[in-house]
Amino acid sequence: MSEVVNKAALAKETAGVLASLSTGQKNEALLVMAEALIREAPAIIAANSEDLERGRLGGTPESMLDRLALDVGRITSIAEGLRQIAELPDPIGDNLETIERPNGLFIEKIRVPLGVIGIIYEARPNVTVDAAGLCLKTGNAVVLRGGSSALSSNRKIIEVLHRALIETAIPSQALQLIEDPNRSSVDEMLKLNGLLDVIIPRGGSALIQNVVLNATVPVIETGAGICHTYLDASADREMALSISLNAKAQRPSVCNSMETLLVHRDFAAEHLLAVAEAFREIPVELRGCPETVARIPWALPVSNEDFATEYNDYILNIKIVGGLDEALQHIAEFSTRHSECIVTADAGNAERFLQEVDAAAVYHNASTRFTDGFEFGFGAEIGISTQKLHARGPMGLPALTSTKYKIHGSGQIRG
Amino acid sequence: MSEVVNKAALAKETAGVLASLSTGQKNEALLVMAEALIREAPAIIAANSEDLERGRLGGTPESMLDRLALDVGRITSIAEGLRQIAELPDPIGDNLETIERPNGLFIEKIRVPLGVIGIIYEARPNVTVDAAGLCLKTGNAVVLRGGSSALSSNRKIIEVLHRALIETAIPSQALQLIEDPNRSSVDEMLKLNGLLDVIIPRGGSALIQNVVLNATVPVIETGAGICHTYLDASADREMALSISLNAKAQRPSVCNSMETLLVHRDFAAEHLLAVAEAFREIPVELRGCPETVARIPWALPVSNEDFATEYNDYILNIKIVGGLDEALQHIAEFSTRHSECIVTADAGNAERFLQEVDAAAVYHNASTRFTDGFEFGFGAEIGISTQKLHARGPMGLPALTSTKYKIHGSGQIRG
Repeated sequence: MSEVVNKAALAKETAGVLASLSTGQKNEALLVMAEALIREAPAIIAANSEDLERGRLGGTPESMLDRLALDVGRITSIAEGLRQIAELPDPIGDNLETIERPNGLFIEKIRVPLGVIGIIYEARPNVTVDAAGLCLKTGNAVVLRGGSSALSSNRKIIEVLHRALIETAIPSQALQLIEDPNRSSVDEMLKLNGLLDVIIPRGGSALIQNVVLNATVPVIETGAGICHTYLDASADREMALSISLNAKAQRPSVCNSMETLLVHRDFAAEHLLAVAEAFREIPVELRGCPETVARIPWALPVSNEDFATEYNDYILNIKIVGGLDEALQHIAEFSTRHSECIVTADAGNAERFLQEVDAAAVYHNASTRFTDGFEFGFGAEIGISTQKLHARGPMGLPALTSTKYKIHGSGQIRG
Repeated sequence: MSEVVNKAALAKETAGVLASLSTGQKNEALLVMAEALIREAPAIIAANSEDLERGRLGGTPESMLDRLALDVGRITSIAEGLRQIAELPDPIGDNLETIERPNGLFIEKIRVPLGVIGIIYEARPNVTVDAAGLCLKTGNAVVLRGGSSALSSNRKIIEVLHRALIETAIPSQALQLIEDPNRSSVDEMLKLNGLLDVIIPRGGSALIQNVVLNATVPVIETGAGICHTYLDASADREMALSISLNAKAQRPSVCNSMETLLVHRDFAAEHLLAVAEAFREIPVELRGCPETVARIPWALPVSNEDFATEYNDYILNIKIVGGLDEALQHIAEFSTRHSECIVTADAGNAERFLQEVDAAAVYHNASTRFTDGFEFGFGAEIGISTQKLHARGPMGLPALTSTKYKIHGSGQIRG
């Protein structure tokens, strides 16, 4: 039996026990896990430095090494994340609906765990802990497959968490790490119907597309974000400026940052130069339509390929449009249906935009950067879904659950 | 461009209009569709007789011809189904959650259509109308791919519905029928990410498995039902008898009928013979474990393969077990997680069963045959989901929807 099948089967064996744990038992385990991480920080940092060393020798870029690196501060904040998960309400067992039928059947719709969740991600050891915590809080077993360049860190973290779980009501078997660094172990997970109930990919678009296109297990797609901000004719100049700057430059590397600014021709005539100058100061590279380039001498010409690119970087496309219809059309063509924003003082245009744009989150007069579990008040999230099935937008704990109908009768049969 | 891509693209073009239709507009269209079907019944029956003729010549079994056959009575009842869909509450636009954040962001979670739904099904022309009605009521465009042996019937039905829609607010383009009878048109639909938002297969397990294993578009699996009824030691004899007979024999061809009866050893000692005799009268063929065969001379020996088979027929497996644990173990091994029942007077055992059995619907003292949208009070259903993502159990109108976060701000940016 392969490592993947073996570990997924071990995880599945615990699903019944996990579904029956009390909230108190789960919270206690999360706190014990947090403590263990802090206590064992030196050992985790030592394992992490092996990964960093290997990465440096292999020529891994500095930005990726930074995502991989752990120190006491980062481990403390990862442990703090587990404590925050312990404080969130437990969705398992919630009664979502009660139906009393004329024949006396008493039907309850109850939240239950999904079962066994597979998480496929890159070389970010914090995801190992986050995913373990979120899955355990929702009574799910979890099979983790992290990037191979974080393998030493992940192994040590899982070792620490396993030892911690032994003191708790949660079987340590519920938490599995796939150590096989070959791509074939990912391929195997994708086809593990019957052992995995869902796979959630977390990472760049190549990783996500591989999962979406090859998995036979149901997937929750946490996709890329090509997000737009549309500055309408009536947009307030200061608001337009601050929302645009925030959406692009507060943290360009994340999925809810802006890639393309759409500007109403009238607004552009009066204010585009000022907006562009603010971006130049940061600096953000600008790529514009011909009309934009005519107004902003330092803007490069934009291509359709640029409009279809998630830069995750200090680069911004700008397109001048004739009005709301043209903005809607551009968004329908290029959006990845993540987060989209209109800045306007016109309530009618705002309503049309929020109604007609097909995206997980649609904003009127606020930055797209708010699409985030913490900002919505959900607490920690396992990712932001860009698909329409099951969960859409920031996925809090309920996104990691399913439901079950419990029916009580007194001998009812169907006529 | 292939027929599949072309028609899916035409359907997708209408998604925006469909999402904005009022409930009144959708209901009116459903009533106009119902009327048109009744008015055009003779033409539909004529087209249907072409399919039946081809089927007979090709040696199609009588039971399949019966599913395919339409007459005035059946068309009237199919039209009545559309009128019932018109009477159901419209889930689109429902506000599921309102969140006011400390920074003043006002977040609403709103029900929206899924977009474009692909339905892949067998030679049952009633599904053509049901699926069209349910999708249109939920503001979804739909691409239908029915069994090729019903092609003449489906073509005529869609022609009638298209002509009806022209009198309504719904663009007829929202309703597409794939006419290519080759299997390749199904394969093409399964990979149509970007044009189809979800695929729902309806039919036998071969059809469903093909969709689940080959689709890259998200799927809602409406799976097979290997359903169990467990008669506990304390089960009331009459209740046990009537629930068992109903679960097996009221309509054996459907997914929520019982395939295996698990019987506590003590109950078996006193009552199994009487239960078996009642099944013999119907008659239902019995296949039993060695202990069952010792008690019921006319029972054949059961195999593990039998336990893993959905008969959809007058055949029943019987296994005598030592108690609840053994029953739970057998169900965990062989259940398809559809509908499972315990008959018992012991409240503790009932609660353990409802808690521990992992299935869409778990019953205490009622027949598994109730797992059905109408019986749950949801009205018409597009199928019964046996997966855990998005929808589980009978899928009413909300299962054909997604959600969207609408956010109103006043210039908020992220710090």
